[in-house]
Amino acid sequence: MVADIAAQVTNRTGIKVFPRDVLRVVGALGATDNFWRVASLVRLPFNAVAEILNSLTEAGVVVVEDGSLRVSPAGQAWVEAARTEAPFVARCRTCGGRGLDLGLFQELLAWLREIGRSRPAPIKEFDQGYVTPESTVARVALLAARGDLADKELLVLGDDDLVSLAAAFTRRPQRVVVLEVDPRLTRFIEEAARAYDLVVEVLEQDIRARWPEHLLHRFDTFLTDPPETLEGLDLFLGRGLASLKGPRCAGYFGLTFTECSLEKWQLLQRRLTGKFGVVITDIIANFNEYVNWDYLLDSVRKDLGFVQVPPAGNWYRSAMYRVEVVESVTGHTDSASNAELYVDREALAYTGRT
Amino acid sequence: MVADIAAQVTNRTGIKVFPRDVLRVVGALGATDNFWRVASLVRLPFNAVAEILNSLTEAGVVVVEDGSLRVSPAGQAWVEAARTEAPFVARCRTCGGRGLDLGLFQELLAWLREIGRSRPAPIKEFDQGYVTPESTVARVALLAARGDLADKELLVLGDDDLVSLAAAFTRRPQRVVVLEVDPRLTRFIEEAARAYDLVVEVLEQDIRARWPEHLLHRFDTFLTDPPETLEGLDLFLGRGLASLKGPRCAGYFGLTFTECSLEKWQLLQRRLTGKFGVVITDIIANFNEYVNWDYLLDSVRKDLGFVQVPPAGNWYRSAMYRVEVVESVTGHTDSASNAELYVDREALAYTGRT
Repeated sequence: MVADIAAQVTNRTGIKVFPRDVLRVVGALGATDNFWRVASLVRLPFNAVAEILNSLTEAGVVVVEDGSLRVSPAGQAWVEAARTEAPFVARCRTCGGRGLDLGLFQELLAWLREIGRSRPAPIKEFDQGYVTPESTVARVALLAARGDLADKELLVLGDDDLVSLAAAFTRRPQRVVVLEVDPRLTRFIEEAARAYDLVVEVLEQDIRARWPEHLLHRFDTFLTDPPETLEGLDLFLGRGLASLKGPRCAGYFGLTFTECSLEKWQLLQRRLTGKFGVVITDIIANFNEYVNWDYLLDSVRKDLGFVQVPPAGNWYRSAMYRVEVVESVTGHTDSASNAELYVDREALAYTGRT
Repeated sequence: MVADIAAQVTNRTGIKVFPRDVLRVVGALGATDNFWRVASLVRLPFNAVAEILNSLTEAGVVVVEDGSLRVSPAGQAWVEAARTEAPFVARCRTCGGRGLDLGLFQELLAWLREIGRSRPAPIKEFDQGYVTPESTVARVALLAARGDLADKELLVLGDDDLVSLAAAFTRRPQRVVVLEVDPRLTRFIEEAARAYDLVVEVLEQDIRARWPEHLLHRFDTFLTDPPETLEGLDLFLGRGLASLKGPRCAGYFGLTFTECSLEKWQLLQRRLTGKFGVVITDIIANFNEYVNWDYLLDSVRKDLGFVQVPPAGNWYRSAMYRVEVVESVTGHTDSASNAELYVDREALAYTGRT
């Protein structure tokens, strides 16, 4: 029966789902009745989680009441089978599981919280959604710990997380360049940089346009929070890599399980270590925690009652990747004006037939 | 001059060394005068660190007194240049940077410390060197957090770290099988398993022999601490992967920078995501901390005075990899009786001409 559900979900979503995934979802229902919390506990794309739960409700294993999920009396045998797949959260409470001591960055954290009060709200048009101030500070701490901050030239591709301001606030980088398409954000970053005398330069450059000479091989470090379609990853990471000077330079980016299947993770890892010529030095789980954004329920499928409920707390998280150039820099400099950056069938906003 | 040193070291060691690496080594001398501590602070193979320091002493930048390293008065300009490459350690002090809460495993930790008193000492013949009890417990916690422990069948390939006993002590795994070649260890593990009624089975199987049918596709999780030559990695990881049942099964292993260059990391990552068909889900820096072992100075090059000094505290660390099977399991089952497992030019024990 577990295998039947897995096969049905694979068939409906086009995303490979295995029996253990179904059990993980059932196991997660022992910890929460909120769909979004389930989605954050299992390492599966959003649509796979939604469809597993949909199939389980069709099979009478799970019932939905006022948008809340629970296992039905008839489904108790499933709970027993899923007992060993129950979520086990062993995240360090001091560092939130990131492994970093933010003690030296308390002033930065306070400042980010302060300026964050007047930041622009995320909008769907640019696939926005920003991380908590702790996540932004942790990124800066990670750069510092890996030798990618002090006296370095940083490039930030898309910056609703304000990591450019945070990095520059430490007074350690030589230069921070931000590419950002949203005029509300470019204005916000420019004003903050001016007010606090930070070495941040904002460029309004469309990332899809042919990559300009003046950005090629000029930076030591890049950061980005890419859209997670293969085209989006290719473009954002390819631009970042094309902008690095050479060996020992590094790139940082977040990647989720929620919008990126393990199959896509693997394709990306092949591309990174192959065509792009980098090595992956760190993958830190749950590093980036996103603040819930207003347009979520508007952007996701509306046919499932349990999906159309507000998340119980922040739920969207991504792993932090660090990659380092090994021999020489490659990247992606061609125009990609027709690239579909934001939506594939693993995206939150996917609304094709499932 | 920095570039000259880098080129010279590359030439002498066959390991790619860049100017920034040289500055990192100089920068590390601001934090310590102990060679082994320098080696643990920079992400470079042992021989590259040794040869960088050797070249710096030849150039008069670094002087050695009673085995201690310091920058000479003539080298002060180098210190200034290396200022931005100084080590910055921002490891969480609660979890040691692993990101895991070991609170639920205090009884296990105490038990490991207890039985560890009578464990066999590491010997050179089998490339041994075991991790701290905290590292072993952290491995078990990581398995639990990723769903790879409870009710699972575990395979441990080589186990001077006693991770088989630790996993079984939690009473969560269904079965733990250990392959170990050292009779002192097999006896120790068997006796402890009997005394504490643990589900551990010990097999005396040479990992180089053709992989037997009864180990193929039988396990949910494997753990190993492989030798870091390409042949050693291929063999240990290939055997582990060949033993996994299929998708969603996982493998865990440690990998250092000390005996494995970034070039080799990259080759391994290509192999993992290509031929071996897995995806890398976690790379956690400095996860495994090794207890200093007796034969260290006996096994490394004797021509450098600063190398022949005792380490100042534990210095040898490895990153923890978790890999997960994506579509289907591949692996390495052929006989490899002539494989050179332990020594290449990035190995600690490499004594060829440099």
